[in-house]
Amino acid sequence: MKGFARNLALAVLAIPATAMAAPAPAEGDVAWDFVAGLTSEVGQRLAGSEAEARGRQWAAERLKALGFSNVAIELAVTRAYVRGLDAARLTLPVPQKLAVTALGFSGTTPDAGLEGDVVYFASLDALKAVPAGSLTGKIVFLDHAMKAAQDGSGYGPYGQARRAGPAVASTKGAAAIVIRSIGTDSHRNPHTGVTNFPAGVTPIPAAAMSNPDADMLVRLIGKGKALRMALTLTGRTAESLPTGNVIGELPGRDPALPPILVGCHLDSWDLGTGAVDDGAGCAIVTAAALKARGAGQTLRTIRVLMAGAEEIGAAGGAAYAKAHPEHHALAMESDSGADRVWRAEMKFAAANAALADRVAAALAPLGIPRGQGEVEGGADVGPVIAAQKLAVIDLSQDMTHYFDLHHTPDDTLDKIDRAALAQNVEAWAAVLGVVANAPEEIAPAG
Amino acid sequence: MKGFARNLALAVLAIPATAMAAPAPAEGDVAWDFVAGLTSEVGQRLAGSEAEARGRQWAAERLKALGFSNVAIELAVTRAYVRGLDAARLTLPVPQKLAVTALGFSGTTPDAGLEGDVVYFASLDALKAVPAGSLTGKIVFLDHAMKAAQDGSGYGPYGQARRAGPAVASTKGAAAIVIRSIGTDSHRNPHTGVTNFPAGVTPIPAAAMSNPDADMLVRLIGKGKALRMALTLTGRTAESLPTGNVIGELPGRDPALPPILVGCHLDSWDLGTGAVDDGAGCAIVTAAALKARGAGQTLRTIRVLMAGAEEIGAAGGAAYAKAHPEHHALAMESDSGADRVWRAEMKFAAANAALADRVAAALAPLGIPRGQGEVEGGADVGPVIAAQKLAVIDLSQDMTHYFDLHHTPDDTLDKIDRAALAQNVEAWAAVLGVVANAPEEIAPAG
Repeated sequence: MKGFARNLALAVLAIPATAMAAPAPAEGDVAWDFVAGLTSEVGQRLAGSEAEARGRQWAAERLKALGFSNVAIELAVTRAYVRGLDAARLTLPVPQKLAVTALGFSGTTPDAGLEGDVVYFASLDALKAVPAGSLTGKIVFLDHAMKAAQDGSGYGPYGQARRAGPAVASTKGAAAIVIRSIGTDSHRNPHTGVTNFPAGVTPIPAAAMSNPDADMLVRLIGKGKALRMALTLTGRTAESLPTGNVIGELPGRDPALPPILVGCHLDSWDLGTGAVDDGAGCAIVTAAALKARGAGQTLRTIRVLMAGAEEIGAAGGAAYAKAHPEHHALAMESDSGADRVWRAEMKFAAANAALADRVAAALAPLGIPRGQGEVEGGADVGPVIAAQKLAVIDLSQDMTHYFDLHHTPDDTLDKIDRAALAQNVEAWAAVLGVVANAPEEIAPAG
Repeated sequence: MKGFARNLALAVLAIPATAMAAPAPAEGDVAWDFVAGLTSEVGQRLAGSEAEARGRQWAAERLKALGFSNVAIELAVTRAYVRGLDAARLTLPVPQKLAVTALGFSGTTPDAGLEGDVVYFASLDALKAVPAGSLTGKIVFLDHAMKAAQDGSGYGPYGQARRAGPAVASTKGAAAIVIRSIGTDSHRNPHTGVTNFPAGVTPIPAAAMSNPDADMLVRLIGKGKALRMALTLTGRTAESLPTGNVIGELPGRDPALPPILVGCHLDSWDLGTGAVDDGAGCAIVTAAALKARGAGQTLRTIRVLMAGAEEIGAAGGAAYAKAHPEHHALAMESDSGADRVWRAEMKFAAANAALADRVAAALAPLGIPRGQGEVEGGADVGPVIAAQKLAVIDLSQDMTHYFDLHHTPDDTLDKIDRAALAQNVEAWAAVLGVVANAPEEIAPAG
């Protein structure tokens, strides 16, 4: 966006903010306008917050303005995390401020913080290996070795340091835990995200620090220095806060046919503005549905689901599945950023092999081959897929740079490449053009 | 540094921080070890702070350990800025948190902050053009159009938005000013730096916001939205705080010959750890001096000057010139990061044309041509150059990415490429090998 800003900067001089006319949007760039508007006119949309509610209103209005039918906000509730003050610093061997963020469902420190000796673990397995009670009063520094990969495959295993590490540290007696961010960048922006304390495990204060900070601690440890850290995390868990989904449809010519469901999530973490996670996904499915419909109508209805509270437990997707037992034909989700689609994974019943071939044929000219891996579906459409054993298509996005931004303050609009965003819309529209016009029954895929 | 951290992570498991042995440093990598140690074992070194004092002790000890003679800490005083709490958010049209940092010598807001309507200016010239008193109570958002350049040439003119913009806004009656960071990155890290309020101009609160935040404001302004901002900057200016320089020498075979002075600055801004600005510079001059000396001695003494308080007015360099009226032969400074040297600029008396040719010949095999531009010398060696009309050599570093990091939280060790740092040392050592062994008189260059 810097270029845009600069051009605008040249065009306007000393004009009060109120007095300026809106620049004309690029002709028909529905996806870009969606994510630019959502991130600027709403901003962050933390699950359970007033901002998430404003996001629902904004998205519902935008869907209506774009010609969607049956636009509805379906309220639900979610367990949530309300951020407080996050701060950390080394106190020994030298005072150094650390860039940290609380994890969702972190325990709470006293307002004045807590301080403790730091004990280093190179991996979650190493932390698991020490005896219960052996870390009493300590602050665990949990490291990991995640690397960037096109398919994002490091996030599953290494992300366990965030998801499970705090609970394991709690069972060992630790006073608190700070993990190396589950991220692949080298910026002073920590990566937040949810952690889980199972029933019976006491939540302890749990934070992530940026990679450069983690590197610095590792250097000091490597020099044989004893580390002490002061940590303040004053956020709290709220057991029940409002969330909700936004639904909209492009009705098909045959309303009796089960709809095609395309999902994304509307909530975001609060540090950035939720541009790549997942404003982009909602922008892609919205623009692609419109593009697939074109001037007329598809045979089947395309239903957009913009889910709430995905980041903190996916309450929106669960609520959708419960509220919508009506049969669906197929589900897809966009929630891996805004970089290019490079591969398609499909799960169809054997009876729909010809349909799968037609989808593959529609993607082939775009350089997107059919993979042989598992489909994932996504956290928002996952519950309805599970309930109805739906057919699923995953359009895998290039995730090489996704975990540079994921859950950080840096998840902002300028990170989205407009050409890559447009390629997503093109790929999605190609798929929807096939499946939403499929005359045959789309069977449960099992 | 992530690779290092990961390898170490594999090597150690559940070992208390105290119990680990230091890994062996790479053989003879004086420059890397210097900047890694300074940024880890000291960290940020804000001018006038206790951390800057620790930096002086650390550097003096390191110079002694490396075999430098006549190592001394020469104390001085500086006007300085003591950071407080920095925070800003939009309150209209929607609440959005902004990533901001106070500028050095900013005015102070009430502890509860201030709030005002935002008035946008695309450039410093546009701000200058409005009548005095016309911005009473407003918060100025001052934009600019700086782009990255190999020679860093945007910083001079566009940096005026930071250096002079706040004073101009004050004369127009503004309550406060927030500038677009003087930087070329798109991360949520604002760029701090010093601003100047001339005598008679009231200091107003003055901050910089990150480029993604500035882009977002420009988008909202472009949509015709009225903006209001809440701003809290509780830092203060201190009129007199301790600073100081660290000096060390590699004595030449003929102590009667005037020394070669190689400079850098030891202080840094407080947001990062001062790795590229200017830990790298001190690392380069130290390592290059040792490399130029080699196993024996140079003809002339090489004197290293690690100056204090450069960032806030260069009091260290001024104090050095005053304390050292003894004649110098030539001065150089490294203060443009850690990327490769790509050009050499020289200023010699006509009588030293042959010496200049020998310097150029020493650099030619490294692919570093002689430029035809002005020499700059640098803020730390500038006063002694001016006082003694010294000959100067600038080894221009590639600054394409320098202003991505400059004065941000992201100025950390991981941003330094070890090969580029080594190339700097090689280039500097090649030059020092010529000038510190020059038998002829090195005349004032005028």
